[in-house]
Amino acid sequence: MSLAARRKRVRLGRTPGSPPNREAILEAARAYFTEHGYEQATIRGIAAAAGVDPALVHHYFGSKDQLMVAALKLPINPHDAVRQIVTGPADRVGERLLRQILAVWGADSAAGGALIGLIRAAVTHDDAARMMREFFVRELIVPLVEDLGSSQPRLRAALVASQVMGLAMARFVIGIEPIASAETKVLLACYAPTFQRYLTGPLPGDKAARRR
Amino acid sequence: MSLAARRKRVRLGRTPGSPPNREAILEAARAYFTEHGYEQATIRGIAAAAGVDPALVHHYFGSKDQLMVAALKLPINPHDAVRQIVTGPADRVGERLLRQILAVWGADSAAGGALIGLIRAAVTHDDAARMMREFFVRELIVPLVEDLGSSQPRLRAALVASQVMGLAMARFVIGIEPIASAETKVLLACYAPTFQRYLTGPLPGDKAARRR
Repeated sequence: MSLAARRKRVRLGRTPGSPPNREAILEAARAYFTEHGYEQATIRGIAAAAGVDPALVHHYFGSKDQLMVAALKLPINPHDAVRQIVTGPADRVGERLLRQILAVWGADSAAGGALIGLIRAAVTHDDAARMMREFFVRELIVPLVEDLGSSQPRLRAALVASQVMGLAMARFVIGIEPIASAETKVLLACYAPTFQRYLTGPLPGDKAARRR
Repeated sequence: MSLAARRKRVRLGRTPGSPPNREAILEAARAYFTEHGYEQATIRGIAAAAGVDPALVHHYFGSKDQLMVAALKLPINPHDAVRQIVTGPADRVGERLLRQILAVWGADSAAGGALIGLIRAAVTHDDAARMMREFFVRELIVPLVEDLGSSQPRLRAALVASQVMGLAMARFVIGIEPIASAETKVLLACYAPTFQRYLTGPLPGDKAARRR
């Protein structure tokens, strides 16, 4: 980091004696998200918990969801991933979704492990379950379905989430063979049609005109 | 219990001073299954752990899988359930499977809770994960697929297990709406086609002749 950048960092923080640490803000953010959930968390509240100015948090991380991405150590920005999933032929969106998920899980063991850790935590801790509902389902999958123009985005997002979690359980947590060690092309052939139907297929309660 | 039955029970046990307790055998069985897994557990080993004659365990519970059913407090015999799922039109087997699962989960809160408890436990304890793999997947779902005459029973069973676990996670563990409070008919419309395809649809690696 350049001296100018370091000076700027110090200037923005409320504790000029010790340069505010990016990792310390992330730690405060993780604790804050866990305690308050994603929806009720604010940059202001996280900054206060970290003892820094909100402007510094904005400076480092931008928006609340980018801070969440950094706190979760996701290997990619999920909003970029959603954009890539939505872009392309509508009849292969299920395949693109699954490719992105498998890429994140397989990207490197630390990042994949963090996500599997979140699923494990969600089973035993209400905070982590809430994070899963509020961030992954409402903030990522529901908008993805809305971007596709499909009916009933909340129901579709819940269906998608249920099969994503079940696949993660079978592949990583419980270790059910042959899914646990299956190649990507096998998983794609098995699961992409499921995701495709959940994302764009007819659902109970659809108006007839909306069915595709 | 009649006096004659009580006498018979005492006669069969190895500790004639204290009549062998059905619940004590079940407790020993739970601990034994947890420690040794389902496949390696034997009636003889469980009887020894409970301090009773193996004949008494057979007398109370019949076979090892029936003992497992009793130890898990399942509200129905899963082998009966498998028979009911297999019987009927082949193109509605996915629906029958899901109906049975929802019936077990909803039968009474204790039994449903025990199964959800097993899923929670499987996430955090290797023993419970092994029980899930060995009993539910290999002992129940794989034979179900074999009875249907479908290709690749292990892969199909793993696919089914992944969506069953994911549905249980969404509905009971994480609480993702609208799945968490959806009516049976909505769940059937959403998930039965998924189970149908996993049980009887074409899969990668199928021989062309086997596809239906």
